[in-house]
Amino acid sequence: MSAPLSDLERAESLATLVGWDQVEDRDAIHKTYSFKDFSEAFGFMARAALEAEKADHHPEWFNVYKTVAVTLSTHDAGGVTDKDIALARAMDAIAGA
Amino acid sequence: MSAPLSDLERAESLATLVGWDQVEDRDAIHKTYSFKDFSEAFGFMARAALEAEKADHHPEWFNVYKTVAVTLSTHDAGGVTDKDIALARAMDAIAGA
Repeated sequence: MSAPLSDLERAESLATLVGWDQVEDRDAIHKTYSFKDFSEAFGFMARAALEAEKADHHPEWFNVYKTVAVTLSTHDAGGVTDKDIALARAMDAIAGA
Repeated sequence: MSAPLSDLERAESLATLVGWDQVEDRDAIHKTYSFKDFSEAFGFMARAALEAEKADHHPEWFNVYKTVAVTLSTHDAGGVTDKDIALARAMDAIAGA
């Protein structure tokens, strides 16, 4: 089981990611992706779902049309771990961002 | 463009659907599906996405692990239309519920 990142580790990790922010009221990170249309948004979700399932680490996400809002946290660990940073990085790669 | 359903039409339509409720603070309908695991939940989403794209009518939905919370409303019409009822019915058929 991963341990939650320290404040410093999380800040350092977030600094290497574009568009990811600390969630205000819980130990989680968040990013909102905007795509061309639903097809592109759901294509992103399908590819990200495969990554998530492979890593056995899943996002919380909300989709409406071309927008996908993602929140990542590691429930078992009660906070942001390296698993979240890895999934964030994989999602960014899929989104081409 | 579809017209919003009247209160009576919406009530009659909701009565034919299982687990769908009127959203409190907006003209929309809502259902939370629970599946076995993420794979089953995302399988549902993938099939529902194809239906939505075919109908050119898309859901607002939130997924975390095995749960998918769906809100349907027709933005153009400013309320619930027969398109929402049709998508709700298609989603229920996919979910086997």
